[in-house]
Amino acid sequence: MPIVRVPLTAKAYDVQIECGLVDHTGEAAAALVKPNRCAIVTDSNVAPLYAGRVLASLKSAGFEPAVVTVPAGETSKSLTETARVCDALIDAGLDRSSVLFALGGGVVGDLAGFVAAIYFRGIPCIQIPTTVVAQVDSSVGGKTGVNALGGKNLLGAFHQPRAVLADPDTLRSLPAREFNEGFAEIIKHAAIREPDLLQYRDDPVELVRRNVAIKAAIVAEDEFETRGVRALLNFGHTIGHGIENAAGYGEILHGEAISLGLIAASRLSVEKAGLAQVHADSILRDLIACELPTRLPDHISTDAIVAALRRDKKFAQGAIRFVLLRAPGDAFVSEEITESDIRTAIDGLRTGPVTTGSARGL
Amino acid sequence: MPIVRVPLTAKAYDVQIECGLVDHTGEAAAALVKPNRCAIVTDSNVAPLYAGRVLASLKSAGFEPAVVTVPAGETSKSLTETARVCDALIDAGLDRSSVLFALGGGVVGDLAGFVAAIYFRGIPCIQIPTTVVAQVDSSVGGKTGVNALGGKNLLGAFHQPRAVLADPDTLRSLPAREFNEGFAEIIKHAAIREPDLLQYRDDPVELVRRNVAIKAAIVAEDEFETRGVRALLNFGHTIGHGIENAAGYGEILHGEAISLGLIAASRLSVEKAGLAQVHADSILRDLIACELPTRLPDHISTDAIVAALRRDKKFAQGAIRFVLLRAPGDAFVSEEITESDIRTAIDGLRTGPVTTGSARGL
Repeated sequence: MPIVRVPLTAKAYDVQIECGLVDHTGEAAAALVKPNRCAIVTDSNVAPLYAGRVLASLKSAGFEPAVVTVPAGETSKSLTETARVCDALIDAGLDRSSVLFALGGGVVGDLAGFVAAIYFRGIPCIQIPTTVVAQVDSSVGGKTGVNALGGKNLLGAFHQPRAVLADPDTLRSLPAREFNEGFAEIIKHAAIREPDLLQYRDDPVELVRRNVAIKAAIVAEDEFETRGVRALLNFGHTIGHGIENAAGYGEILHGEAISLGLIAASRLSVEKAGLAQVHADSILRDLIACELPTRLPDHISTDAIVAALRRDKKFAQGAIRFVLLRAPGDAFVSEEITESDIRTAIDGLRTGPVTTGSARGL
Repeated sequence: MPIVRVPLTAKAYDVQIECGLVDHTGEAAAALVKPNRCAIVTDSNVAPLYAGRVLASLKSAGFEPAVVTVPAGETSKSLTETARVCDALIDAGLDRSSVLFALGGGVVGDLAGFVAAIYFRGIPCIQIPTTVVAQVDSSVGGKTGVNALGGKNLLGAFHQPRAVLADPDTLRSLPAREFNEGFAEIIKHAAIREPDLLQYRDDPVELVRRNVAIKAAIVAEDEFETRGVRALLNFGHTIGHGIENAAGYGEILHGEAISLGLIAASRLSVEKAGLAQVHADSILRDLIACELPTRLPDHISTDAIVAALRRDKKFAQGAIRFVLLRAPGDAFVSEEITESDIRTAIDGLRTGPVTTGSARGL
């Protein structure tokens, strides 16, 4: 089975990638923690598809699992939902020796990871990502958290998972739009580290493995995002988060907003960092091929996006730290991008080509 | 000025203890962090007494402080209040380069410390404890957190403060009952580490310094409570927390419940660990001298206390780990105490002497 090690000094862990792994959760977990009282945290979309299989596997390995289901969607990433999940875990009898399984996409992974970070001041969490974005990106690296009224991911903790069990078969159950949005992060990984990554589109195990390897290497270099390396993962995310936040969650999916952010960031890279136009075009072509949006809806104003962006965690005391590309695979953090540059880049998204093509390759 | 260093490898910090220090918060903080946007988190009791002085001192040192006031009392230790404080910090423009000042007693310290732990995944917190329990105990050691419906301190994080600024003059403003309750933790420190500690009762600076030194040494040995050393600080707290939880917060103060817990734990120490009766009597005498309760109110049933205690974080998978004393200054974690022993010890608290005497020495 392909395994990617996340080589952190104090708490290294493995990302296991295998089709059918969902039905072997119990064995995989029992190799890492003592079978015991535990809980599967999942959401209302994923529970009917996979909770029963994970539950059965855990039981057969000697675990005593409870299932805690949260409403599907970004609104579950809140301190209110955190409190509800914690109360359910207490009712289910979980204590400091228990383990949590986060079964679902990015929202479940971030929320359950955060719950694991604070429950009894920290219990182990095993991530079982079931979406593209969770498998190639968010389940790895230990960033957990919830949203505040004022912005996305403003509250959270670094809490590395004990393991990540990624079953690419689960991606088959995703609706096309959710499937496609995950490719925004893949195209980001391609841009900053491995330009030819999309050639593995028809080999889901290898595609996930390569993305996880990119993420793992960056996280190992800069676990707490203090050295400027992990910041490179924000390529496309500054304007992307601003769009997502300004749109109100739900209208535009995270990956769709990141698609627009990637286009804006590659155009700024051409203007300010000498990226050849042909490479910016190639990123745009990949996004189109994955049916990701390339045009900003008119009703989301530039002012609203800039206002949202000011509240972004990535802004340290008003200074803008913006990730640019010099060349494919060569990203850096620039402090030369002004608010005016950002406004121009956002306005440039209003006249993009209409999405065509299909990413549905798996 | 007396300074106690908390010698943690990666994040050592100082506890400064000096009368009048409240008015020098700004200088002390500016020596540690760049003056910047910041916030004072305090409660409705403490704000009118000290927030203005801390604010003025911070401003004169170049900080731009906002003040966030929570309702006084244990009910503020919740995820709901955590969310309110975080939203207020976002509105006030605090970002990842900001610092939080926790001005108040144990509740404010635990809540604001937890907010600092999760805000932007962690910002520095400077503790300014204004109660006995906060100065001698809870402001030091990095345990932060809030209560869940199911029990006290079940949700939280280890987040060491950047510094602790303790001004013993602030203890003069405490109502007698709040002043006295703090002595339960001092008597606990005396029991497990320094039997003659109470002789410094009339020298507040030295009393605080010695208590902090005890706590700092234990925390340095066992930052994350994984080595069994920090667990010794739970002497008196197993039954104490059970009583506090069963009574419903508010009726019995934390230190008052701990007083009862200390009596029960010393009696169990006599029966099960060979502590000489004269030493158990001495602990009881000290509690009485500090006007702390020695008799459990009849309406709090033993069943309710045992039920609350089962939900306690200190219970790992149902096993009871109970701190006992072999002799003054010689505590250990026992696994021999049964639920039946605990019930007998609780029942023994129903016939204790009525409180007399006065601890008001400062």
